[in-house]
Amino acid sequence: MGKEMVMAKDGKEKGAESRKENVQQKRLKNREETLSKIKGFAHDLVQEIEKAENPHIDIPVRGSSNVAFDEKNKKIVLGSKVAKRYLFNVAHARRFMQTMLVASYVKKDLLENNLTATLRDLYYSKKHTISGTKEDTIDEQKESDLAIVDFEVALDTFRERLHLRAEPKGRMAGMFTIRDYVQDRESLIDLSKLGSGGLAIPSIVEQIEFVDYDIDYVLVAEKNAIFDRLNEDEYWKRNKCLLMTTAGQAARGARRLLQRLSGELKLPCYALTDADPYGWYIFSTMKYGSMALAHESDRLGCKELKFLGMSISDIEHYDLRNVTIKAKDVDIKRAQEMKAYDWFKSKPWQKEIDKFLDKKVKAEIQSLSSKNLQYISHTYLPEKIKSQDFLP
Amino acid sequence: MGKEMVMAKDGKEKGAESRKENVQQKRLKNREETLSKIKGFAHDLVQEIEKAENPHIDIPVRGSSNVAFDEKNKKIVLGSKVAKRYLFNVAHARRFMQTMLVASYVKKDLLENNLTATLRDLYYSKKHTISGTKEDTIDEQKESDLAIVDFEVALDTFRERLHLRAEPKGRMAGMFTIRDYVQDRESLIDLSKLGSGGLAIPSIVEQIEFVDYDIDYVLVAEKNAIFDRLNEDEYWKRNKCLLMTTAGQAARGARRLLQRLSGELKLPCYALTDADPYGWYIFSTMKYGSMALAHESDRLGCKELKFLGMSISDIEHYDLRNVTIKAKDVDIKRAQEMKAYDWFKSKPWQKEIDKFLDKKVKAEIQSLSSKNLQYISHTYLPEKIKSQDFLP
Repeated sequence: MGKEMVMAKDGKEKGAESRKENVQQKRLKNREETLSKIKGFAHDLVQEIEKAENPHIDIPVRGSSNVAFDEKNKKIVLGSKVAKRYLFNVAHARRFMQTMLVASYVKKDLLENNLTATLRDLYYSKKHTISGTKEDTIDEQKESDLAIVDFEVALDTFRERLHLRAEPKGRMAGMFTIRDYVQDRESLIDLSKLGSGGLAIPSIVEQIEFVDYDIDYVLVAEKNAIFDRLNEDEYWKRNKCLLMTTAGQAARGARRLLQRLSGELKLPCYALTDADPYGWYIFSTMKYGSMALAHESDRLGCKELKFLGMSISDIEHYDLRNVTIKAKDVDIKRAQEMKAYDWFKSKPWQKEIDKFLDKKVKAEIQSLSSKNLQYISHTYLPEKIKSQDFLP
Repeated sequence: MGKEMVMAKDGKEKGAESRKENVQQKRLKNREETLSKIKGFAHDLVQEIEKAENPHIDIPVRGSSNVAFDEKNKKIVLGSKVAKRYLFNVAHARRFMQTMLVASYVKKDLLENNLTATLRDLYYSKKHTISGTKEDTIDEQKESDLAIVDFEVALDTFRERLHLRAEPKGRMAGMFTIRDYVQDRESLIDLSKLGSGGLAIPSIVEQIEFVDYDIDYVLVAEKNAIFDRLNEDEYWKRNKCLLMTTAGQAARGARRLLQRLSGELKLPCYALTDADPYGWYIFSTMKYGSMALAHESDRLGCKELKFLGMSISDIEHYDLRNVTIKAKDVDIKRAQEMKAYDWFKSKPWQKEIDKFLDKKVKAEIQSLSSKNLQYISHTYLPEKIKSQDFLP
């Protein structure tokens, strides 16, 4: 099932120059779009000031009181509640000022210079003592982080469009060629030729182009150890898949990339985590988004993602009873909470959680090593995928 | 200062086949060397059994009572104390048995199949209930981990030679081409063409070959955020260096790689951490090894590594007083401990630690962002390197 995508195979081909120009124009357009949103945002405030009104920002309310599950689109979303933040209100003024600092940094330091930065860079850059006072603009980074999210939701955009990076995490390998850009430098990257390390998944993946590929699905493993096992067994080559690891809870880059692979290339995506509530949580965050980032589910959730395993039924089916781990009280409590979440209300998941609550044991993916090291590559994964034995 | 190393530029060149053969033979030889060590180890035990003696293993004592600083070779090493572990001794028998399980797993499951595994895989594979008893061979992974280290030191070898992987961490980029092997699949990797992610540094780097490079030094940053900043500024290209990040405390792969770059290629190596005791600790572990892994300093320590910064003097010199962080009691206590370590006894380090204890402030590398985002790339690093303003 070989697939071939548009684009030149190397930068020297005919048409490469115009392709490069197109890409640069697209990136410029994205920047200008965000800049114009920021200008609009500022313009509204200036108008209020000119009319001698109390300048305010509309900020959609975050937090559980305004978070809902969109059943149809399979994502955790923000509701319609909006808070108004006023400059002339002692309870609002500080956060109002901090939101302006964020806006100014994003516009002048980042977008206009075409640079990216971390939340911490922003904090350091905008923290100072307000002249004539003993008051600091920002005391703790927590404050500027909140102001950044305020600004994101007020602008109806997302962090990467504001050129703000998160901590990168995860690796990938497969018969897959991508093109990545750092400023004007482009790299054509063949993910089948990166040895035992693989490509580190960057924090911002918006600019990545899918050049060509020969794969049938994407397999995303929670653990580095599983990536290393499958990479050593050349699982991705033998089974035509793109192999990713999130190295724990998935970072923004890995989540967005998964969404793009599923949405743009229509590739089936399967998640592989431990059989425990933490594994389910990692899965559900990749699939539906999270309550904390409900405003970003649109671009971080991969609604077609399926849970390959490890399931509680796998423990019996693959005779792993001797290598399970007794669930702790905190696991039981977490499972009970998750059972009540709207996004775990489907019958198969309710059954899965009930089974866990009944048996009170969990299992790690690595417990398959008790059979033999390559059991996961040669037996477990091929069987599960062949029988399409997934949880939704 | 372009440098060119041996070896073919691509696998199709004349001589590539014989190079590949050489490499395979070398790897086979390493495996056979370790296998023969294991056989020798087992042979001694069998001889004792045949002589009706109490079988025993000599295990160099680890822990602070047997750790010393080798001033001349600049590394933390194990002393000469050796403990004898006997099979027929109720206090020793369990650990003796566990060491045998490790030996058997490494020989039969890993080396003879040319596979690698994690410590957790070994634990799962060797944990079982001893037949006729209610006793498990291994209760907690902690036990098998200790048995693995026992086996390493008893055999005078290191974990990677036993085909045991650790959690990988870190990334790299630069005008540097390496060759990596996963089983028989080889990858020629140009580290200047990996976009914003860079190559994920694998856990085992023994097999990596340095093919060709055009760099003057290696810069290893503690933080992903600094890697991303310098990568976006193409620092490694403009300044001809290999850029690495350890993403926190350095993992075994990054440490070993740094040692190889310094030892085999004689490249100067500079460390870039926060100005605080934790940054010094990250630096000292990369340079001298650690007390916990004193038996591995030989192959994990990079004795030529220099501390570029950030130093406490930098705080004044670069006028960062407004963006420092007040040291906590735990920082002060840690600094006092480190001041007493033999490997921090040099005058410059004693002065550095005293300055910290006097000012009681620490600073993060990112505090340079308070000047401007590219200050680190355009001013701080070039200045420090030009003036060779390092701590030893």
